[in-house]
Amino acid sequence: MRRPVLRLSTSGSRGRRPDTLAVEEPLEIRVAGAPLTITMRTPGDDFDLVTGFLAAEGVIAGPDDVTGMRYCADTVEQNTLDVVLAPGVRPPDTLLTRAFTTTSACGVCGKASVAALRDDRPYDVAADPLTLSPELLAALPERLRAAQRVFDRTGGLHAAGLFDAAGELLVLREDVGRHNAVDKVVGRALREGRLPLAGHVLMVSGRASFELTQKAMQAGIPVLAAVSAPSSLAVDLAADAGMTLVGFLRGETMNVYTGAHRITI
Amino acid sequence: MRRPVLRLSTSGSRGRRPDTLAVEEPLEIRVAGAPLTITMRTPGDDFDLVTGFLAAEGVIAGPDDVTGMRYCADTVEQNTLDVVLAPGVRPPDTLLTRAFTTTSACGVCGKASVAALRDDRPYDVAADPLTLSPELLAALPERLRAAQRVFDRTGGLHAAGLFDAAGELLVLREDVGRHNAVDKVVGRALREGRLPLAGHVLMVSGRASFELTQKAMQAGIPVLAAVSAPSSLAVDLAADAGMTLVGFLRGETMNVYTGAHRITI
Repeated sequence: MRRPVLRLSTSGSRGRRPDTLAVEEPLEIRVAGAPLTITMRTPGDDFDLVTGFLAAEGVIAGPDDVTGMRYCADTVEQNTLDVVLAPGVRPPDTLLTRAFTTTSACGVCGKASVAALRDDRPYDVAADPLTLSPELLAALPERLRAAQRVFDRTGGLHAAGLFDAAGELLVLREDVGRHNAVDKVVGRALREGRLPLAGHVLMVSGRASFELTQKAMQAGIPVLAAVSAPSSLAVDLAADAGMTLVGFLRGETMNVYTGAHRITI
Repeated sequence: MRRPVLRLSTSGSRGRRPDTLAVEEPLEIRVAGAPLTITMRTPGDDFDLVTGFLAAEGVIAGPDDVTGMRYCADTVEQNTLDVVLAPGVRPPDTLLTRAFTTTSACGVCGKASVAALRDDRPYDVAADPLTLSPELLAALPERLRAAQRVFDRTGGLHAAGLFDAAGELLVLREDVGRHNAVDKVVGRALREGRLPLAGHVLMVSGRASFELTQKAMQAGIPVLAAVSAPSSLAVDLAADAGMTLVGFLRGETMNVYTGAHRITI
């Protein structure tokens, strides 16, 4: 989306020119007609987004779990997507407490949330025998950026890329929301029948949060790599799940927070 | 929080050292005992966070609207905060559709959401007579970073700073979630009885989304400045509300997307 912008500098230069903006629009996700959540996302690949979202929530595990998806037809804008689950697939209860165990009357707890996800794990990520060299990991950010340059002229998009064990980029998705970019990548792979994503690496352009680590884990991805820092709870979850978590992957260096046995030195 | 990390480089160097991580923990927000939402945040300034959150949701407008806040006492971890609203203050219904108008049976719409916020605006931001020079704006990112260096050794935190018309930093807050950093800043100001924040500038370390723009608007802040790009819907909302939205504020240059009349050239 292009908008006029006034470009200023303290040296006194000024100019009006069109600027390309990252598009942000709400998407309401419904399951069998019932509103589930609203996410602010960049339109495009919405079927992937909703599929990946439902996989991360533990609702679906493969393409057969979804019977159909369609936009609400009443409006021009495609901002409401309704999902029909296959018979026997249990719709989500509520999103509020999905990843969070109420340990007592007093509510949520990070440690308990990490532990609670143990019972939900659809795949044994810890057993994944994937190994990677530092050289291969160090090459991923530039491959992600090179692919991004084709799509993004806005500077306002987060990217997530799925790589195979040889470091080849299989799926790239961008979005104003980093969780959406990851959902789109995982959703695309799920729709192609490729879950669990054993032997794969998920690379994200920003930080690694608990939520992104959870989404990778739920998709069976053994290695999560981020350009920036991980959070404490992301490291806790990766350690608990037996994932390899790499942060500050920039230039020739990287920090390995968990699962260093997968890095060949 | 410090954790051991394996630092690797492709040149073959390796070393194990402690790394400081940004702490991420869930916070459950309750109103009069009823669970409202869970946010992933960096612990600290939780009272500010919850106050700012409720202000952005349009629930409260001043310090007298909150009678009390307390952590649930059953656990060691302070991850559940219960808010008691003053008599007559209406508790929020549901967060799902707060900023989003269901325009038809077909759900949400960005344009309609921008328009819907018109009726909710507690303050007339458009009438704010604040003016700023490009030089003053250009100085803000370094002032934010200088203040951040005091707090953040993790590289994993978003920052939000409230500046006055002279460019002085009044409040700085950091968080793993950028919306939380803004809520903490606004909440601190509200608790000091300083809303509306007419004549002030909110500066954020990353991108400017619809949500952050909405939070600034609800606090009566006429100028939002971001180091990175704004989204399309952030620009739409700022234009509609009469706010000044500045993006890519880096070095000596900046992009003015809306409200350029506040910039003195």
